[in-house]
Amino acid sequence: MHLISGINSAKFFSATAEPKEPVVCTKTIPGPKSIELNKQLGKIQSTGSIQYFADYDKSKGNYIQDVDGNILLDVFTQISSVPLGYNHPRLLNVFKDDKNIKTLVNRPALGVFPGKEWPDKLQSILMQVAPKGLNKITTMMCGSCSNENAFKSIFIWYQNKLRGSSKFTQDEMCSCMVNMPPGSPELSILSFHGAFHGRTLGSLATTHSKYIHKLDIPSFDWPIASFPKYKYPLEENVAENKKEDEKCLSEVADLMEVYKKKGKPVAGVIVEPIQSEGGDNEASPEFFQNLQKICKKNGSALLIDEVQTGGGSTGKFWCHEYFNLESPPDVVTFSKKLQLGGYFHNDDFLPNEPYRIFNTWMGDPGKVIILEEILKVIKEENLIANVQNSGKVLKDGLLKLEKEFPNLLNSTRGRGTFLAVNTVDGKVRDTIITNMKLNGIQTGGCGENAIRFRPTLVFKENHANIVLDRMRKVLKNL
Amino acid sequence: MHLISGINSAKFFSATAEPKEPVVCTKTIPGPKSIELNKQLGKIQSTGSIQYFADYDKSKGNYIQDVDGNILLDVFTQISSVPLGYNHPRLLNVFKDDKNIKTLVNRPALGVFPGKEWPDKLQSILMQVAPKGLNKITTMMCGSCSNENAFKSIFIWYQNKLRGSSKFTQDEMCSCMVNMPPGSPELSILSFHGAFHGRTLGSLATTHSKYIHKLDIPSFDWPIASFPKYKYPLEENVAENKKEDEKCLSEVADLMEVYKKKGKPVAGVIVEPIQSEGGDNEASPEFFQNLQKICKKNGSALLIDEVQTGGGSTGKFWCHEYFNLESPPDVVTFSKKLQLGGYFHNDDFLPNEPYRIFNTWMGDPGKVIILEEILKVIKEENLIANVQNSGKVLKDGLLKLEKEFPNLLNSTRGRGTFLAVNTVDGKVRDTIITNMKLNGIQTGGCGENAIRFRPTLVFKENHANIVLDRMRKVLKNL
Repeated sequence: MHLISGINSAKFFSATAEPKEPVVCTKTIPGPKSIELNKQLGKIQSTGSIQYFADYDKSKGNYIQDVDGNILLDVFTQISSVPLGYNHPRLLNVFKDDKNIKTLVNRPALGVFPGKEWPDKLQSILMQVAPKGLNKITTMMCGSCSNENAFKSIFIWYQNKLRGSSKFTQDEMCSCMVNMPPGSPELSILSFHGAFHGRTLGSLATTHSKYIHKLDIPSFDWPIASFPKYKYPLEENVAENKKEDEKCLSEVADLMEVYKKKGKPVAGVIVEPIQSEGGDNEASPEFFQNLQKICKKNGSALLIDEVQTGGGSTGKFWCHEYFNLESPPDVVTFSKKLQLGGYFHNDDFLPNEPYRIFNTWMGDPGKVIILEEILKVIKEENLIANVQNSGKVLKDGLLKLEKEFPNLLNSTRGRGTFLAVNTVDGKVRDTIITNMKLNGIQTGGCGENAIRFRPTLVFKENHANIVLDRMRKVLKNL
Repeated sequence: MHLISGINSAKFFSATAEPKEPVVCTKTIPGPKSIELNKQLGKIQSTGSIQYFADYDKSKGNYIQDVDGNILLDVFTQISSVPLGYNHPRLLNVFKDDKNIKTLVNRPALGVFPGKEWPDKLQSILMQVAPKGLNKITTMMCGSCSNENAFKSIFIWYQNKLRGSSKFTQDEMCSCMVNMPPGSPELSILSFHGAFHGRTLGSLATTHSKYIHKLDIPSFDWPIASFPKYKYPLEENVAENKKEDEKCLSEVADLMEVYKKKGKPVAGVIVEPIQSEGGDNEASPEFFQNLQKICKKNGSALLIDEVQTGGGSTGKFWCHEYFNLESPPDVVTFSKKLQLGGYFHNDDFLPNEPYRIFNTWMGDPGKVIILEEILKVIKEENLIANVQNSGKVLKDGLLKLEKEFPNLLNSTRGRGTFLAVNTVDGKVRDTIITNMKLNGIQTGGCGENAIRFRPTLVFKENHANIVLDRMRKVLKNL
């Protein structure tokens, strides 16, 4: 056992208390205790997606421990939602403060009776990480709700532009109550093949990564364009990838025309800076710059979904900072590492009337106080720079593995530690992921044949080397 | 000042530390400090729905204190989401336990890596309040997400019935990826005029309470039936109200036929036990019994939305317990007082394949540990019986006020403390609510002209008498 146990005081929890390396003690993962718990849970829930049961009390830093005593170096981090690792001492300390405990048990309806500290908290915590040029914030609970409400803000903005200064008509007010136009207009959100933006009905209509997410669920007839599929290495395929950009962008422009003619104009475009669930598909800064131009030309809003990419793991706090857009995107959604959901936007996307964008809780102050400490640690420990460093080690190592195992791996890509590599097919991918787990590394799959890496922000060079060593061992034995 | 201040130790926070009565010290609410904070927040957010800023550290039990020192008896309770009042000592104590703090900072992706205690927690906390006959639980984050995912479970169930034992076809798997049938089928959820089920695009398609919630947002062509509008007092209008039930039920049956012929069969019906946002509209047990019969006859699922009614304030833990349905409803959704969202259901609504009902967090163990303590207190202090007692006092008092002010009030209704009374019109209603606030009582409006009461479960007879006394004063001065 590499864990220091029996120490309760927060001051003893430092990065050095992390295990030195992974420990696997069962022949299979899930081990017997996980299998037993799975049976128990199966009596009241669907359990088909469960990998194992974790012992979070014993997990530490970059290492997740399961109930069977396996200690895995976690580079999947709860689907990319853990910024500082497990049981970070600074986060445990947050709730030593009685004031913060009161925040947990007095949860307000933030849209009606916010607490006295809420304006300050929003300003000093969330607005300090606002994407450049976006001066408004709407908080929500999760990624799906953030995208859904961002869509609503976009639809309201679009109709207000058409309506000008005139008031709602009687016909609009009556028809919307029975889901009919003109009150419930035939507007659309353009999305991309391979995209993932959530699973509630509105956000699911813009998700196109796997059929199992969508099958049997009614949807909207909204336009879907191709997202670039690049050839790697990028520097050897510049001309071809540029053509790919152009093809996709011309599809976007065409679909905007088609759906305008269809009577379902495109109010907004939603896009991930890196398509995550869909296979870690990147697109160039030029692609995003031109996408924004097409949006502006057509009067459509540009929504950048940073639910998975936001929070620092790409080597910038927001991935779209890499794109040098000529002006800020209209809306940026977030969740996961930021603990709660929401979206940043500009003044144009602030509805004029109350209760249009609203729900009971509208976010969660209990999550914001955790986020406050996370952002402090990111700043104090310079974790974005850390991500750039360890990301370089991990990426260079993956490129090296690609060269060592050209029949197994290709197309290493990504930014910061937000990285992926393709395998030859889905079956090989799944085998590698399983074997890496049995060698102490928790990774995740995405798309058809990619392995994705989503380490914490406290993932260091030494962790990257452990991942690479174990991966090499797995590939050698394949 | 009636608040005991300067006492930090949890043991001093008892019910007796509550203020004896409301205190209003500003001429208007919001007072000057709230107005100042509103300006500050207005720089980064929409603030049109904010009533005032609260000082939650100083709020206690049934009393909410605002930043200007006003202490209001709160019978609206954050849109019906506070079960035990503010700063309940038992809830403050929950986070004195280091284990519970760890739960807050190690938030898992529950569908993939649940913690070792999760099966036990679900079983011993949520399943102990499962509606009779529903043996499965799916956890979510909020009411909207719960309804959205319940819809998805219903659609999957419906299509599986049609599909029988056969597998997904290639055509289904491909077409759903571009939002088209047969993979994304034209199914519908039937809802009722006046209903409120949430504000994300799927749930909003079943919400029909106020146009401002729906205007400018694209929707689905799904059937909407009339919900009974009763005449009060019920005992004097039996025959007429029975006719009203029959009229609405026959609309449901007709719409099922119409939408079947339209090619958009009704996979499920969603209904609130008492339409809350829509005006606290009740329907009889017979209405619900017959609604269930129509659902069964048509092969449609019955989803009872207990997001606002669930958790005890109707005098039963679930309001639909009053309906003596011949068999359990298929799905029951919850949120608000239960701290997190989710739905109970039977085996039929458990998808066979993983990742169909799924998202990153799938609920929040940090909320479940609060719920655990809430349920203990409800049981130990017999709070459901308390609701029945104080609800009777409040209802009898409202009926008496109705007789005293027949030109202002009518149609007192509801169960437990989940009560409402109609005023003559929306303008008078808003005036009464404002004046009650200035007399120390925080209520809420619903529908066009109703005042709704949503006290905590620790609201006692003495609180009811304060509400009634202050309301009488307001009505006299009108």
